[in-house]
Amino acid sequence: MSFSPLIEKLMESLRVLPGVGPKTAQRMAMHLLERDRDGGRRLAAVLEDALERVGYCRRCRTLTEDEVCALCESTRRDDGLLCVVESPADQLAIEEAGGYRGRYFVLHGHLSPLDGIGPEDLGLDALESRVAEEGVEEVILATNPTVEGEATAHYIAAQLTAHGVRLSRLAYGVPMGGELEYVDGGTLSRAFNGRLPFRGD
Amino acid sequence: MSFSPLIEKLMESLRVLPGVGPKTAQRMAMHLLERDRDGGRRLAAVLEDALERVGYCRRCRTLTEDEVCALCESTRRDDGLLCVVESPADQLAIEEAGGYRGRYFVLHGHLSPLDGIGPEDLGLDALESRVAEEGVEEVILATNPTVEGEATAHYIAAQLTAHGVRLSRLAYGVPMGGELEYVDGGTLSRAFNGRLPFRGD
Repeated sequence: MSFSPLIEKLMESLRVLPGVGPKTAQRMAMHLLERDRDGGRRLAAVLEDALERVGYCRRCRTLTEDEVCALCESTRRDDGLLCVVESPADQLAIEEAGGYRGRYFVLHGHLSPLDGIGPEDLGLDALESRVAEEGVEEVILATNPTVEGEATAHYIAAQLTAHGVRLSRLAYGVPMGGELEYVDGGTLSRAFNGRLPFRGD
Repeated sequence: MSFSPLIEKLMESLRVLPGVGPKTAQRMAMHLLERDRDGGRRLAAVLEDALERVGYCRRCRTLTEDEVCALCESTRRDDGLLCVVESPADQLAIEEAGGYRGRYFVLHGHLSPLDGIGPEDLGLDALESRVAEEGVEEVILATNPTVEGEATAHYIAAQLTAHGVRLSRLAYGVPMGGELEYVDGGTLSRAFNGRLPFRGD
């Protein structure tokens, strides 16, 4: 025996959500059907609406339902600084850390020839024209510190170097509040090689 | 900064799902928007459909989109046995354990005067007429072994006793495959009081 066909279909559909296996999908379906039908209906409507209307910002390519996102519209950001990130979640993390007052460009991924993801999929043409035409002084390559992220940063750096823009990368090192014992060897040797003079502040 | 209003609304709507906090909701929203829009659209459509069409089986009150569920329709079950459970998930667990070939009655909860859940909310009138009119020989009270489940079982037993039906309750004891060390005291003393003659089979 199993649940009715429509309930089974609902459980299967819930498994598109990351981290949701069969047991969790069952718990979610039962919760919505038994205890929160209004919340479920609201979720269905908002999900449909968001998938219909959320697209890419015409300037920075972040996810937004507007043609140009709020951050690109803002007049209080520094046009001379452009931070390139792999995802909207990375962008949000940098914003939440505070301190950065420039603009962004979102790649939605990294170069991955094996998956057929090339420069055009990441909007690198648009990035290049923006740098060439809009007085960007420094591009901060904030792709992930992974093999793919590094390769993507190198590719972009090579593409932009002809435009005489300053290029930078986030500093590598030991994370704040961590314990050295648990830091991996690659990070530790990077942190040694990049060591800084001690200042007592 | 945060995501755009519609994305924030999607993240908030996802939190109706049990066990989904702000971080998980963000990860789910990003996954659907960035990597699986088709899956997300399918989920929205199926969810809307299920919440619209899934109701209670007219006979046993389990969740189904049909008027009468497949198990109640089946001619291969024993009409003389009726198992009363708190939820469709409990019913499924019993079916998956195998061995039981009778019918079910689903309460969708337990008596809870403080939450305003009384006998009529659990369909106890329908249960009583079914027992009175349909030749049920034994009612197995398989409510949860909790204070509320026990109270509900006692209430139903008192209600049905006038109809001369046999009443039973699931056996209490130590769970199979567990270690005695980790079994709680209440269960252990129940298992002692209910001890059975040893048979070498």
